Amino acid sequence: MSTTATQEQAFLEVIQSRRSVRQYDPHTVISREELKEMLTLAAKAPSSANMQLWRFLVIDSPELKEKLLPIANSQQQVVEASAIIAILGDVEGYRKADRVFGQAIEAGYMPEDVANSFKERYVSLYSSLPSDRIREVAVIDASLAAMQLMLVARAKGYDTVPMGGFDREKFKEAFNLGERYVPVMLLPIGKAAKPGHPTARLPIEDVTFWNEVK
Amino acid sequence: MSTTATQEQAFLEVIQSRRSVRQYDPHTVISREELKEMLTLAAKAPSSANMQLWRFLVIDSPELKEKLLPIANSQQQVVEASAIIAILGDVEGYRKADRVFGQAIEAGYMPEDVANSFKERYVSLYSSLPSDRIREVAVIDASLAAMQLMLVARAKGYDTVPMGGFDREKFKEAFNLGERYVPVMLLPIGKAAKPGHPTARLPIEDVTFWNEVK
Repeated sequence: MSTTATQEQAFLEVIQSRRSVRQYDPHTVISREELKEMLTLAAKAPSSANMQLWRFLVIDSPELKEKLLPIANSQQQVVEASAIIAILGDVEGYRKADRVFGQAIEAGYMPEDVANSFKERYVSLYSSLPSDRIREVAVIDASLAAMQLMLVARAKGYDTVPMGGFDREKFKEAFNLGERYVPVMLLPIGKAAKPGHPTARLPIEDVTFWNEVK
Repeated sequence: MSTTATQEQAFLEVIQSRRSVRQYDPHTVISREELKEMLTLAAKAPSSANMQLWRFLVIDSPELKEKLLPIANSQQQVVEASAIIAILGDVEGYRKADRVFGQAIEAGYMPEDVANSFKERYVSLYSSLPSDRIREVAVIDASLAAMQLMLVARAKGYDTVPMGGFDREKFKEAFNLGERYVPVMLLPIGKAAKPGHPTARLPIEDVTFWNEVK
């Protein structure tokens, strides 16, 4: 499928205008409908075997944002943003394989026998992976959706900031993640009260190898 | 910063038209200039502490694509796509902190004393993280850049397919990644010879929690 120059330009503007925003207008409300719309678009990201191991814990209750504050090193954005999307990886996500492949059959994307054979293969593979490997697959899936979510939010005029600096153990405990859900990042979303700072990037030559790692 | 309806529409079309493409026109050449341009845009993704732990190993030599074929379970796209971008995480990426913060000072984004104090803090933090934690940070950074790269490619009329199914140990050995570079995914990029299959996604309710994990 081809794209137009206008599309490319508009797309690049979204990418270039995305910045990590740490100060939000505390009065901006984003409806759950709109949040769901953005999450639905984020979840169009690809995932390993289409198993979609991303999970979104939306924190929009004022009490829970306050509870999150000390866990997130008192960074004000977790109370001032309209909502905090905790991006999680589900290490037992293969439990939804029935649903995933059922949908593919229903939509006519796969004949039933093909879908069932894929399903068996993936459930057997995923449930037997070493725990650090399935965790990594979940973290990758979740990160892909997170990046897409940041861009979708920007395209809709909102801002975000991916936060890795929080107490993972306390967060898991406070929000009952158990062993199943891996916290990947916290992603506050809202309207910027102050624009994000620009940041520099390493020259591309510094992070690129051509055919050979040197 | 606000966005326009046209921008939003154009952006959403890029997201919606991205599909994993497994059949490529083997005659399409993407110049290294254009690859660099796309990688530069991908690297505008955010990263933990702006440390940019993503690395890109571009494989565009026919011999190396052939070498990759058996490592990637004989999936033809690794020889037919114009290039394969191996997305890596650099677990020793903090070694570039001098450069990262030097750039921030040079661009006037940070006063020198602030930059130096951040730098010391991050180098000390990153070099003392347990190896599984720094690996996860690198994998997350790399995945964010990978998602942005897939969308940039699409906006420019190219297609990609994120591949997790390859022999990681053999890949590390064949391309001399050592212990420093973690392979996150292989990302063939090129012109589709056949469009990708559509795939379904779980209903958003199935992957979203509101304030409470249930």
